[in-house]
Formats: sequence, structure tokens, C-alpha cells
Amino acid sequence: MPIELALNRYGKSSVRLLKVLRHADRHDIFEVTVDLACTGDLAAAYTEGDNRQVLPTDTLKNTVYALARERSFAELEEFGLLLGRHLLAENPQFHQVEVALAARPWSRVEVAGRPHPHAFMESGASRRRTLVQVGREGIAVRAGIEDLLVLKTADSAFEDFPRDRFTTLQPARDRVLATRIGADWAYAGVEVEYGAAFSGVERQLVETFAAHDSRSLQHTLYAMGEAVLAAFPEVLEIHLRLPNQHYLLANLAPFGLDNDNQIFVGTAEPYGLIEGTLRRT
Amino acid sequence: MPIELALNRYGKSSVRLLKVLRHADRHDIFEVTVDLACTGDLAAAYTEGDNRQVLPTDTLKNTVYALARERSFAELEEFGLLLGRHLLAENPQFHQVEVALAARPWSRVEVAGRPHPHAFMESGASRRRTLVQVGREGIAVRAGIEDLLVLKTADSAFEDFPRDRFTTLQPARDRVLATRIGADWAYAGVEVEYGAAFSGVERQLVETFAAHDSRSLQHTLYAMGEAVLAAFPEVLEIHLRLPNQHYLLANLAPFGLDNDNQIFVGTAEPYGLIEGTLRRT
Amino acid sequence: MPIELALNRYGKSSVRLLKVLRHADRHDIFEVTVDLACTGDLAAAYTEGDNRQVLPTDTLKNTVYALARERSFAELEEFGLLLGRHLLAENPQFHQVEVALAARPWSRVEVAGRPHPHAFMESGASRRRTLVQVGREGIAVRAGIEDLLVLKTADSAFEDFPRDRFTTLQPARDRVLATRIGADWAYAGVEVEYGAAFSGVERQLVETFAAHDSRSLQHTLYAMGEAVLAAFPEVLEIHLRLPNQHYLLANLAPFGLDNDNQIFVGTAEPYGLIEGTLRRT
Amino acid sequence: MPIELALNRYGKSSVRLLKVLRHADRHDIFEVTVDLACTGDLAAAYTEGDNRQVLPTDTLKNTVYALARERSFAELEEFGLLLGRHLLAENPQFHQVEVALAARPWSRVEVAGRPHPHAFMESGASRRRTLVQVGREGIAVRAGIEDLLVLKTADSAFEDFPRDRFTTLQPARDRVLATRIGADWAYAGVEVEYGAAFSGVERQLVETFAAHDSRSLQHTLYAMGEAVLAAFPEVLEIHLRLPNQHYLLANLAPFGLDNDNQIFVGTAEPYGLIEGTLRRT
Repeated sequence: MPIELALNRYGKSSVRLLKVLRHADRHDIFEVTVDLACTGDLAAAYTEGDNRQVLPTDTLKNTVYALARERSFAELEEFGLLLGRHLLAENPQFHQVEVALAARPWSRVEVAGRPHPHAFMESGASRRRTLVQVGREGIAVRAGIEDLLVLKTADSAFEDFPRDRFTTLQPARDRVLATRIGADWAYAGVEVEYGAAFSGVERQLVETFAAHDSRSLQHTLYAMGEAVLAAFPEVLEIHLRLPNQHYLLANLAPFGLDNDNQIFVGTAEPYGLIEGTLRRT
Repeated sequence: MPIELALNRYGKSSVRLLKVLRHADRHDIFEVTVDLACTGDLAAAYTEGDNRQVLPTDTLKNTVYALARERSFAELEEFGLLLGRHLLAENPQFHQVEVALAARPWSRVEVAGRPHPHAFMESGASRRRTLVQVGREGIAVRAGIEDLLVLKTADSAFEDFPRDRFTTLQPARDRVLATRIGADWAYAGVEVEYGAAFSGVERQLVETFAAHDSRSLQHTLYAMGEAVLAAFPEVLEIHLRLPNQHYLLANLAPFGLDNDNQIFVGTAEPYGLIEGTLRRT
Repeated sequence: MPIELALNRYGKSSVRLLKVLRHADRHDIFEVTVDLACTGDLAAAYTEGDNRQVLPTDTLKNTVYALARERSFAELEEFGLLLGRHLLAENPQFHQVEVALAARPWSRVEVAGRPHPHAFMESGASRRRTLVQVGREGIAVRAGIEDLLVLKTADSAFEDFPRDRFTTLQPARDRVLATRIGADWAYAGVEVEYGAAFSGVERQLVETFAAHDSRSLQHTLYAMGEAVLAAFPEVLEIHLRLPNQHYLLANLAPFGLDNDNQIFVGTAEPYGLIEGTLRRT
Repeated sequence: MPIELALNRYGKSSVRLLKVLRHADRHDIFEVTVDLACTGDLAAAYTEGDNRQVLPTDTLKNTVYALARERSFAELEEFGLLLGRHLLAENPQFHQVEVALAARPWSRVEVAGRPHPHAFMESGASRRRTLVQVGREGIAVRAGIEDLLVLKTADSAFEDFPRDRFTTLQPARDRVLATRIGADWAYAGVEVEYGAAFSGVERQLVETFAAHDSRSLQHTLYAMGEAVLAAFPEVLEIHLRLPNQHYLLANLAPFGLDNDNQIFVGTAEPYGLIEGTLRRT
């Protein structure tokens, strides 16, 4: 039976690094979780159990810690590029190395109103993410954010939709809109101010969500993507993934109570899921 | 600024259905979680807030329950096809409807050694999955399984791998091998005995994992995929995703104890991740 | 300001052990996650930073692996007793050592219908648990199970309940009843056939849930506990924690469809939670 | 066989409420997840299936939404007291009603540097918690926080600990210390400025963690509790639960690299767990 190995891919996931940068007056931290995935001339490992081209995933892990010690870098994207380039250069059998990185939003603790030199706290539930693909023909860098929960209590409607036999939803002129923003975007080239770009895109997403007069989550998604593309020329395209975290108007009529958009029931499932990719043309 | 909506997609996720089939002598259950995603001529919703083509996700949800009542079906794949075909036929604005379904492994309770007519229990931690894509040009059906945890304590090695400056791993002639099988495969056509095929592939994956003389997880992955393709002509290709759930030999030397492959430390992170797609040619 | 350290407690959690027992014809496995917690004369560590009585949690972890190598045991409870007794005997500063153990339901893989000598799979989503408390004045052993999901489609009602101003629930003569069984029970003494007792109690709980003619989940809870106490004299008391995993009758009337207990909506939240402790008097 | 129902308890969990307070110039939100648990004269429900005293858990849920509409309150604790008092007053069969509440840290979105009137974002991964117990003999109010992740890169040591046969840990004069703060405390009486007290205790915990010269996590735990009791006379006692989120010094010697407290390996399991209760005497 003729069989083709149409895709191969292997690596180490959930490699957790903390690097402490010790300055005279303060410490900085770089904390990240790294996933490494390699593809290449590896078919013999699969078909024959020939491991002569299989750099151990344990070595991939060690590489993360060793390069973190040897090299200087400031942003997730820079560390990802550095890891990918190193592994591709050292391993002719690899065609591509993919490095995915995720980081918590750490902030410096304030004590009595002043920044503490070496204490930090997690200051959000979202995660900053980066995906760096280093291949023989080129490099692609994407950044993103996930689990950024936002909610607005006005300027959101959903009306004028089609109805079929199974439609019971009533049009809403004024509803609560909440979503857990997931976004990732492609950068043009590798000469980007990654830290500033990330913070700027994050802020743009949140501010546009807040300020938009929404006719649907699709409508708001587009406005968010458009605002990012307008403000950040280094962003080539952006994909948004917006789960609709429904807050349903509670029916209080059986209790003789009105409910003029005051009391809502939060629900986790089922949930609407709206996606879209906006790209410069 | 010229912008293209390069991708649109929306739907309802985590719609949880239980259908009880009431026979004279017993009940059967069909329990499933459904995710529906539609793409099509929907740009105006994004760019203009024009909802006239946006069938509400609430209606998508209602469709799941209503069709479950009206129609007969026995397998996940059949229900997915039925939902996808209905939504595509009724909504000319859609180009494709994707239906993803997931189900627990329920089994009938035995009381005093005899099958109970209407009581059931969850009999595994894995999930059966199906992805049905119904488009204007054709239909694709994939099935899969995830989180099927298996472990073997012999017939697994990892040796003869390349070493670089960062390699510290020692070759292992005899190690514990454990993985949480994730697999999904494409069926040829829609005239498949889906229930029998799923059970057969699941059993084939487990038996091959058990019986294989493994030189690496890549090697075992290929053997598993090859066995499925050999035994199931209705399977066109199979993708396997095998996280290496490492059990590391405990170092007991500091306590004056030997450890001849008896005591292992289970670790969740970091973990090796091995993937591959096998396809008939 | 006079302050009392009213409680102290420290230890190591999530210590993951796999022990492989290598017999001539087959391997057996003992896989467990251990949490160790010690209390005692440890106030100086808290108040003064005096560590002279603080056996490191890293040592507690090492003790798990070392004793697993040195000693023989067959059941969770035996290993817990062994660990607790060792730590209490070696550390006069401890008053009590608590050992909590949790294990997956592993079963042996069958290949071509025959038990495989060294391959295993996870055969359920539930967890077996044990809590052993070894103190200077005595020993207590509890066993338990959690996340054992069961469902019945008949012989369950909820009627004749009180109604107040906020009551909208309709009485149900015939409903779906599902719960994720959580149970833990106290054994009399330490001369118990722990493995047989656990399997027996688990089976008794499931069979009683299935066979009971339920007027409420409280009613079924009591029947389950009573059946265990009746069948297992070694069980002194049993606590049951039964979340009501609601399946709500879908309202299909808007679609012109009846629904004679066939189509249900699964919901995760909110959920009823019913608890009770039954004790021999 | 004589059996006693030694404990009964039932209620509704995960009731998710959003209340929007619509002021002329802005909206405020009160979002909370509520768990209600009732105990009382309910034995007949368990033993006989007599539901005449079992107020449905569905009614408990409705009560949350209806009272949220009818009544005014500003803090978690006030809403919990109101719910508990209502349910106890209306249901003579209950002896005690327990209300547990949890809330996300929402903050108001800023747009162009100015607070937005009706948009909010999740501004932390921690949760504020309250437990209100309303009984016939009295009322107890506890507040708490969980999952507040903090980390410091200096002023933490662990030395001078005892060593036994299984000890391999090296003393550390300078280590990374991280924990996910879990704390809950009892208030004296019900005339407390709950919002200000919560924010104050949270800040005190973080600042003390940061500023303390730590000889162990036990040592820091005590300092944190002591600081809270010193600064907040309305707090009677505080329980702290501090998992040690270990960051282990990476061993880079095999790669010819030193590591002067710069590169650490984050680990999730096993983890040390340190607890203590401090109480005024």
C-alpha cells in the first residue's frame, strides 16, 4: 500500500523560561512560555525509526535556556527570531522552525506609591502571543493577544436580521456586548518596534470596541481591525476571533418586576463566535 | 486605505444536545456538543453593519434542537451532514457551513450484571469528534478522537540521535512511553459506516501503540497511521498529534538506591509534541 | 498587637509517581499524584524565619520516590499510610501528616482480545482518591471517587415542592437526571481490603443511582449512601456531593414541534448542588 | 440498620448576575457569580422523598435576579447579606443560608486618556470572594482574594533547614520567590466599609510580599498576615494559602555557561504549599 508522509512536525512545547535582568537600581523580568516545532527531512524517523536527523526535543528545550543566557533581547519577537534562526542554521535537515511564545502581563509592584525594584504582579488575565516562522525561503512574524475580556453596556444593537422558521430572537436596539478578544496580526518585515506595536494595537482594539456604535459583533470586529490597520502601517493583516459572551436580559415579569436593561444573566455556552481577517490591498 | 475582508466566518459554538430515543424495552441516548460556522456573502455585515444576510446565531442554535426532533440519524457524522445541508440549502448567502461535533464515550450501566434499560455512565476521558464541511462544490467528512491516554512500559527506545552543544539527553534503550492520542482522518465519500469505522480506528490506534516496537514516538506514530490506512479503505488520510507525556526515570542514587526502570517522575510540561499526516498515494 | 498562629500547615502537592512492577509475564503499574501536608511545632518558622524544624518540601517529594522504591504496597491507602507513618516517625516536630492521593482508572489494553503484558489506557474520567491522616493520637483513612458522570432518562421526578413569589419551576413527573458523583467515606480501622472496597462502593453507587425511583436528587443521594452502608460494614460514614447536571426540556413549540421528553438542552451553569453525610449510629 | 443524616446541604451554584447601574453621565456594573447553600429541617426530603420543605434550587436562582432588581447594594458583602437574610426569613425550615460570591476585577476603559462612560475591561486574573453565613444564631462575613500572582527576584532565602537521608536541596541565600496569593479573612460585625477594606487588604498583602526580607514562604506568610491585622482593626483573623510557584535555577554548566541567578525554569508541579491562620488574641 503506497503511503505518503504528507506532513511532519515535531518539537518541544510549554518550555517555561524566566530571565532576570539585574540592573544596578532595579531588576527587570522576561517571562515566557515557548513552543518549538520543526519540520524537514525527517521521513526516515517516521518510516524506519532512524533517529540520525532527530535533534532531541530535550535539546530544543536546553537551547531555549542556553540562548536566553548567552544572548540579549528585549521582546518576545526578538527571542523567537533568535531561537528560530539558530535552530535552522545549525540543523540542515530542518526546512522550517516555528517558535510560538506567550507571556503574562506582569507589572511592577508599587509600594507606598513608588515602583518597587524587584517585585512584580500579574496585572491581567490576557496573554501576549507571538508566532515566528523561520524558513529557508523567508521569515514571518505574527503577534497577538488572547483572552482580553471587554464589555460595554450601551451603543450595541442587533436588528434587521433575516428570520426563518426557527428564528425566535427578538431584535435588540440596546444590549450588553461582551467579548474575549482574540487577535493576531502579521508584521511587514522584521524591523518593527515590537513592544510599542503590541501595546498600541492592544489599546487600539480596546478603545475601538468601547467607542464603536455597534450594529453587530461583525460590525465591531471590522471597525477594530480597520482602526488597527489605519494606525499601524507595520501591520499587514489582522485576524480577529470574537466569542460573543452573552449577557441575556433576565425575564423578571413572572415576579411582577420590570427590567429596563438592568439585570442580565451571564452565560458561557452556547456562544456566538465571530471571526474575520482584514488585509491591506 | 483599501482593505479587503479576506475571511469571514461566524456561528454558534458549544450547543449541547441530548436526544433520548425511547424504545419499548430500553432508551438510547445521543449526546453531542455542536459548533456551527458559516461563511459566505456576508461582507456588508462587517463593513456596513447591514444584518440582512446574518441569520442569527440564536437561530443556528434552535436549528440544532429542531432538526434533532424532526429527523432520524444514528451517528455524529449523519447529524452533522443533515445540519450542514439544511443550512446551506436554506441560506443562499452561505458558501459553506462547517459542523464540528464532539461526544463523550457513554456506556450503559450494568446492574447485577445486566444492561440497565435507561441508565448510562461516562466510560472514558476521550472525546469522539467529527468535522463536516458542506459547501457549494462538495462535502468533506472527517472523524477523530482526542485525549485518549495510553502508556507502555516496555518496547520503547530512543537512541542514535544527533548531539549538539546543548544535548545532554542520554540514549534510552528501554523507557516508558505515554501519549494522549489525538487523531483525525478524512473519509472517502459519505457512504461510510461511521460508527463501526470510528470504533475500528480507535481500536487499531490503541492496539498498534501497544504492540509496536518503538524507536521513537515518530516511529510509533507512523506505524499507527499505517495500520489504520491498511485496515480501513474508507480512510483517505490520517493526521496524528501525539504529545509525549514524559515519565522520567527518578534519580535515586543520592539515597543509595538503584532504579532499574521502576520509579518514574510524571511531568506535564515541557512536553515533546510529534505530529504527522499519512496519506494514500 | 497580640497575634496567635492558630493554624500551620505546609507540604508538597502534585507529586507525580509512576511505579512499574516487573513480573515475569507482565508489568503492573501504580500511578498516583500525592499531596503531603504537615502540621506541628513550626511556629518559629512563621514568626522568626527559623527554619531548623522545616524539613524542606523538596525532601517530602524525594521521600515519595524513595519509599516507593524501597517498600512494597498494592493500594493507594497502603502507600499513604506508609508515607504518613514514616514522616511522623522521623520528625518529632510534626503532630500530624496528611497524605492525599489521587489515581486515574488505568486498564490493561487488549490486543486481539488478549490482555497485553505492558500496555495500558485510561478507562474513565473519574479519579479514585484517598486521604490518610496520621497523627500522634491515631490514624484516619478515607477513600473516595470524584467526577463519575452518570445519567438516567427515566425514574426521576421532582414534584410537590413549596412555591414562593419567585418560583416558576413546573413540577416534573419524568425528567432526565444526571450528576457527577463525588463521594468520600471513612473506613473503620486500617485492616481493610482497600482495593475491593473501593471497587465495591463505586459499583454500589452507580447501580443504586440507576435502579432508584427518584423523587429528588436528595432522595437518590440518601439511597446511594444507605446502600453503601448496608453492603460495606467497613464504611463508617459516607459523604456525597452531587451536582445536578441539568438537562432542560427544549421548548420546540415555537417551531410547531412537540417534545415528549426527547430533546434536551445540556447546561453547565447554574447547577443545583446536593450534599449529605450518612453515618452509622 | 440505624443511619443518621449527619449533614444536609443543598443549593444553586454558579448563578451569574450582571447588574447595570444607569446614571446620567455613566454606567456602573456589578458582576458576580453566586453560590447559595441551605441547611435545615430537610431530612424527610432525603429519607422519604418528601419535597414539601425543598424550595427548588431554580427558585434560589430566581431570587438572585429578582432581589438584584428590587434592592440597592454596592458591595459583594451587602448583596450576600441581603440574599441570606431574605432566604432565612422566608423559609422557617432553613437553619442557615450560605452565600458565596466571586467577582472579576473589572476596570473602566480609558479612551484617549479619559474614562469611558460605559465600557469596561477585565484588569486582573485574580478574583475577589466573599462568604456570608446567615444563621438563626448569628451572621459571619468573610472576604478574600484568590489567584493573585506575585513574584520577587531578590530578598528571598531558604537556609538552615534540617537534612535527612532524603534531602538533596541546597540552601539558597538568594532565590526567586513567587506565589499565587489565596487569602480569606473574617470581619468583626457587619458594619464594615467592605469595598475599602478589600482594596486595602489586597494592597497590604502585595506590598508586604514585595518589601519583606524573606527567610521562607512561611516567614513571608506571617508577615503578610501580621501587616493586615495591624492595619485593619475590622479584620479578626486571616487565613493565607500560598502555593510556592517554583522557579528553579537552570543548570547551564553542561553548556559551559554560568548562571548567576539569571535563568530560571518555571515549574507548575510539584509545588510547595504553605498555609497559616493568624488571629487576634
